[in-house]
Amino acid sequence: MRTVIPLFDRFTGLDAVGPYEMLAAVPGAEVVFAAAEAGPVRSDTGFLTLHAELPLRAVTSADLLLVPGGPGQAARMAYRPLLDWLRAIDATTTWTASVCTGSLLLAAAGLLTGRRATTHWLAKDQLAPLGAVPAAERVVFDGKYATAAGVSAGIDLALHLIGRTAGHEIARAVQLGTEYAPEPPYAAGTPETAPPALVTALRARRGTILGTADPAHRTG
Amino acid sequence: MRTVIPLFDRFTGLDAVGPYEMLAAVPGAEVVFAAAEAGPVRSDTGFLTLHAELPLRAVTSADLLLVPGGPGQAARMAYRPLLDWLRAIDATTTWTASVCTGSLLLAAAGLLTGRRATTHWLAKDQLAPLGAVPAAERVVFDGKYATAAGVSAGIDLALHLIGRTAGHEIARAVQLGTEYAPEPPYAAGTPETAPPALVTALRARRGTILGTADPAHRTG
Repeated sequence: MRTVIPLFDRFTGLDAVGPYEMLAAVPGAEVVFAAAEAGPVRSDTGFLTLHAELPLRAVTSADLLLVPGGPGQAARMAYRPLLDWLRAIDATTTWTASVCTGSLLLAAAGLLTGRRATTHWLAKDQLAPLGAVPAAERVVFDGKYATAAGVSAGIDLALHLIGRTAGHEIARAVQLGTEYAPEPPYAAGTPETAPPALVTALRARRGTILGTADPAHRTG
Repeated sequence: MRTVIPLFDRFTGLDAVGPYEMLAAVPGAEVVFAAAEAGPVRSDTGFLTLHAELPLRAVTSADLLLVPGGPGQAARMAYRPLLDWLRAIDATTTWTASVCTGSLLLAAAGLLTGRRATTHWLAKDQLAPLGAVPAAERVVFDGKYATAAGVSAGIDLALHLIGRTAGHEIARAVQLGTEYAPEPPYAAGTPETAPPALVTALRARRGTILGTADPAHRTG
């Protein structure tokens, strides 16, 4: 299975690398990182740079298209070259997926219209205006479209996709190989379980976290 | 807090990027990826390339040294320039940590002698011969040394480290921001919970997974 992961300036590293790690462990798998131009692509923190092997124009099909999110997403919601590319690749895929605010790009491309989907909890209210139907689960499947909640949820998404494409035994082998038996030290991973004051604090910084508070980057 | 993450050819991507994502989200944090030479460093799958910002020789101290693992570890167990660098940086750190088989490099550098530590479950029997004391937990603290089990365990490790250095409220905020409320679709993340046949199958491929079956890469 050939997975294509498009990168863009100010993507979130774990959105892309979490699912990559799982998907690349499947026997015979291929994972391609692509971006507007081949070469280094800087993530949202400025500390992590991933290398895109191919320019988007060199990628014309995928078995699985997996779109990460990050603060750079906001600037690309009307950026035609990327949205056109997403539509073109989606026309060739068996599965089209996203992590975090990557689903907002899929929605902006018109690919989630009328479909159940999720995104980062801070961005969930953006789904309906874009035509998608917000869902409560951490990983949401609707037909060939699979969307995951924020950042770390892409790991769970990838295991679900592996189960459906390569089978449950392979998915379990990948989980065992990556020793994915998580033990978060706190119960603060969702707005429902985190201390309310913390949820309020993150909501107050929402524009910075989602990249919508940064006009310098709204190039789209 | 300045975290330094050394990369090497055939490291495992999520070992490095999982903890990075958490650590970089702490206000005022700095995370530096370094390698023998600055520039692209290819991971174990060949699909993911990370960019090292600095050569190891340009890094002379760290608050937190975090060593990832991967098949490339095996070839470096006697590689003096890296082991000397690990010892020199460790002499400056408040915390020295590892993910997966990164702990074997710390042990080879003599930094885990007599200390409780962990590593990828397939490599656990290598700890005692290197002078460390194998421990059962997913994240093991012994003094300033913190080691995590395989691949995905680095995320839990990082949250523990953030809790101890920046406080529990910041750690909870990072967990909420990354929506880290994992829901693995299977209970196969440890050899104790995975189907026994799968454990046997991975043990049979142990040399390939750990990088010890690949003489071409044993350059150390």
